[in-house]
Amino acid sequence: MTSPSYPLTVEQPYPRNQWWVAAYSGEVGRNLLARDILGERVLLYRTEAGEAVALSGICPHRAFPLDKGRLVGDHVQCGYHGFTYGADGGCVLVPSQTSVPQNSALRCYPVIERGDLVWIWTGQVELADLTLIPDVGAVGLGNPAWASEQHPVCEVAARYTLLIENLLDLSHVSFIHATTIPGGEKVAQIPVDVVETDRSLTVQRKGENLPLNPLLKMQFPQQRGPVHQHFDAEYIGPAMIRTGGAVFDAVSGHLLGINNFLHMITPTSPTTLRYFVITTRNFGLDNPALGQINLGMGTRIQPEDSAAITAIEQVFQSTVTLPREISARVDNGALKVRRRLEAQIRAEQVA
Amino acid sequence: MTSPSYPLTVEQPYPRNQWWVAAYSGEVGRNLLARDILGERVLLYRTEAGEAVALSGICPHRAFPLDKGRLVGDHVQCGYHGFTYGADGGCVLVPSQTSVPQNSALRCYPVIERGDLVWIWTGQVELADLTLIPDVGAVGLGNPAWASEQHPVCEVAARYTLLIENLLDLSHVSFIHATTIPGGEKVAQIPVDVVETDRSLTVQRKGENLPLNPLLKMQFPQQRGPVHQHFDAEYIGPAMIRTGGAVFDAVSGHLLGINNFLHMITPTSPTTLRYFVITTRNFGLDNPALGQINLGMGTRIQPEDSAAITAIEQVFQSTVTLPREISARVDNGALKVRRRLEAQIRAEQVA
Amino acid sequence: MTSPSYPLTVEQPYPRNQWWVAAYSGEVGRNLLARDILGERVLLYRTEAGEAVALSGICPHRAFPLDKGRLVGDHVQCGYHGFTYGADGGCVLVPSQTSVPQNSALRCYPVIERGDLVWIWTGQVELADLTLIPDVGAVGLGNPAWASEQHPVCEVAARYTLLIENLLDLSHVSFIHATTIPGGEKVAQIPVDVVETDRSLTVQRKGENLPLNPLLKMQFPQQRGPVHQHFDAEYIGPAMIRTGGAVFDAVSGHLLGINNFLHMITPTSPTTLRYFVITTRNFGLDNPALGQINLGMGTRIQPEDSAAITAIEQVFQSTVTLPREISARVDNGALKVRRRLEAQIRAEQVA
Repeated sequence: MTSPSYPLTVEQPYPRNQWWVAAYSGEVGRNLLARDILGERVLLYRTEAGEAVALSGICPHRAFPLDKGRLVGDHVQCGYHGFTYGADGGCVLVPSQTSVPQNSALRCYPVIERGDLVWIWTGQVELADLTLIPDVGAVGLGNPAWASEQHPVCEVAARYTLLIENLLDLSHVSFIHATTIPGGEKVAQIPVDVVETDRSLTVQRKGENLPLNPLLKMQFPQQRGPVHQHFDAEYIGPAMIRTGGAVFDAVSGHLLGINNFLHMITPTSPTTLRYFVITTRNFGLDNPALGQINLGMGTRIQPEDSAAITAIEQVFQSTVTLPREISARVDNGALKVRRRLEAQIRAEQVA
Repeated sequence: MTSPSYPLTVEQPYPRNQWWVAAYSGEVGRNLLARDILGERVLLYRTEAGEAVALSGICPHRAFPLDKGRLVGDHVQCGYHGFTYGADGGCVLVPSQTSVPQNSALRCYPVIERGDLVWIWTGQVELADLTLIPDVGAVGLGNPAWASEQHPVCEVAARYTLLIENLLDLSHVSFIHATTIPGGEKVAQIPVDVVETDRSLTVQRKGENLPLNPLLKMQFPQQRGPVHQHFDAEYIGPAMIRTGGAVFDAVSGHLLGINNFLHMITPTSPTTLRYFVITTRNFGLDNPALGQINLGMGTRIQPEDSAAITAIEQVFQSTVTLPREISARVDNGALKVRRRLEAQIRAEQVA
Repeated sequence: MTSPSYPLTVEQPYPRNQWWVAAYSGEVGRNLLARDILGERVLLYRTEAGEAVALSGICPHRAFPLDKGRLVGDHVQCGYHGFTYGADGGCVLVPSQTSVPQNSALRCYPVIERGDLVWIWTGQVELADLTLIPDVGAVGLGNPAWASEQHPVCEVAARYTLLIENLLDLSHVSFIHATTIPGGEKVAQIPVDVVETDRSLTVQRKGENLPLNPLLKMQFPQQRGPVHQHFDAEYIGPAMIRTGGAVFDAVSGHLLGINNFLHMITPTSPTTLRYFVITTRNFGLDNPALGQINLGMGTRIQPEDSAAITAIEQVFQSTVTLPREISARVDNGALKVRRRLEAQIRAEQVA
């Protein structure tokens, strides 16, 4: 069996001082929702005032799963012996006595909603810096100048790094998505640039003078001539990757619009992940058919990617011996991301 | 994953120099019954004379499970190559030769029937002391002055200590059994005493001047005024816990009767258990409806407890990290039992 | 849990410098067939010219299972990013670039077809010696003087050594096959000889002056008097065991014919195996009913043996503690085979 951190060469499989997406905002309400995040059981709910709360989901009394209890106002009551906790995690009641034990608070995770996503900080509380959350407005989330569609959340039985690498190496489009993304083969042949900043790394393909395909015609009905089209895969951090990109008129260089696929990836355990997808666009806001097209693409493409990385994870989980890994030049971006991730994890361990 | 001994702080999860319940007497007959007990495969059957026998259930020749063989008179014949063993475990026949190999005896476990239960000693044979078996007559088993009901045996995917602690902390009644035990909440609020003897530890609640509820009215139709009622949880050893207790006329202090739930717990592996329940009472022997009520309560309550401790075991088995345990004062009895169990296990290891 | 090498006392569970049966010839064609062999994922197919090919079944680029890709002429194209490999394993194409990475070849296994079986060499290529393949012609495979029947291949959830020992100790016939092999009990009582050569070890039973049973009457309709019949279990190596044997006229000593069951055993992982059976006979070639009888016997007997060794493997995989092993004198042959296997494995480790 392959190490649970593979292909990373660090011991810990993921960084903890990191904002991750715990849920779509609409998933969290006045019921107790348990989600495993980075191998921890997290309990999500909303206070009566509507604030999202994330607490440890295991009662420290006798390890009963708290989602089997109930909400009493803003408090969580354990379903086993009735130990009750406030929205800050503090134990407020032990039914059989008048005081509460020492050190009885549930862990309370920093939580913030941005772009209809519930972000959770899994690391040291004092390091939870809101400026580390991706600039979701810039990619079209919670931004009135953009339309967006939430795709169904799904669980994938594969380590999160497999999905990151899947998304950063779009040369797979011609094979995994051969029938679902027509013309993908041509895209895969466009030369690749890797553009790095402190906060992100983009594997960039700039298509030039592309003829208008049927999809572009629907997206930009006014457009007559050829276009330049960007096919980006932008690593904004381990929790969010953006694919898609901008389309320009090839003659004037004028921006026609941007269509993004935002992929939010949350490790649930060392070898499993939760996958959220939102599509955004800053054009055709009055044409809901374009949103339907984006949803339809997600419906077809996501299962293909999930199946591919699950097949690899099954190889990792089996007793089958792995060949030594080789890489192509097109993997350059994905390999740099591995190094970034490893550096992020190592920095935590030193600290 | 949590250590298989947790919450005990010893390496071995259970004591071996101990009598455990292997089966109800009625389960053992002229067929081969295999049961895992403390991680060992035990073969149970009766001789033609009716004696219960417990042998190792794995043929030492080629590790074939002996319950797939057959009984030939009082002998067990392996279903693979026909090696045959007597009721004392001794190898009596190897079909391909006229003598038997050295050291070919099956392990033979001391076995005794008490109170319609087959008790097995899993430790060193020379230490198998019958006086260590709980005094089953005193709690109403095999005693003509008492009525009793055998509840269905069940397998629970949880470590045995979880069931012991469940039964010793009856403050869970208000939550787990909120709908099945009406009025349980009030019981949980009665102050708790822990009464210890060499052989047992009782978590005792003494209800005083309780009004006659519908159940008490059925149990004691002559009774008019309020009662005193004991709600005991008596640890008679890891293999048997008694709950229930005596009811008295509140005015005269006269004993009306005793209704016991006897819980026999046998670890099958470090993380699973077998659960036997028998109810006994020393009143209303001519009223079988009272037995039906006891059976009905078991039918509803047992699955609730099994589900609760299975949910905890699943947390233990997962990769989810556990919070540090806290306890309430009401856990005092259960925590003392942990210390007793650990002392029992440590004493074996020293010896 | 028992060590995966048990009952061998070496660390590696199987020899690698060994020819094993990967498939029946008819199973390998113009599609991609993945088979686990000795814990390795092997990809089998035929070139357009009809040559059987065996390559590593995991793409070294990103560990995708290659059987989910496709054949392009004689090349294998990975279904994930299109890395393409020739029939010698060499990487011939990486779609996103004009050259291929270094060290990008798939492992290519020596393969040869003999007796309608695809034999694969799992060890060091330079040691792949064709003379180490059993003399399949001598036991009736691919030999026009013999008839043969291929039985369905099956997967068994048991370590391969359990099947080897099953076949070498035919004293199990009276028990496991009590109803499917009538008269087996008498066979098991015939004294056993162990005949050893450099290349094989035979556990031999020579039945003398046996009356003609119904099966022999069908096989040898001309025969009138009693026969001598050999019941062999010949270990030709870990990959092939022959059972059955020759029948002679008891008066003249004249050979009437030979009926063999050939058992090809391939470990798929340390605790699982793949099982191929072929029956051969050098008499009654014009009587297909005799082949049907052989197939029918396999249909009944194979599942009985598979069930027996699976039951043992389940004991090994469980937490149940094993008794210390005992053996009978009739196990002598099987025990010598254990020593041979261990010596073969140790010799590899030294080298």
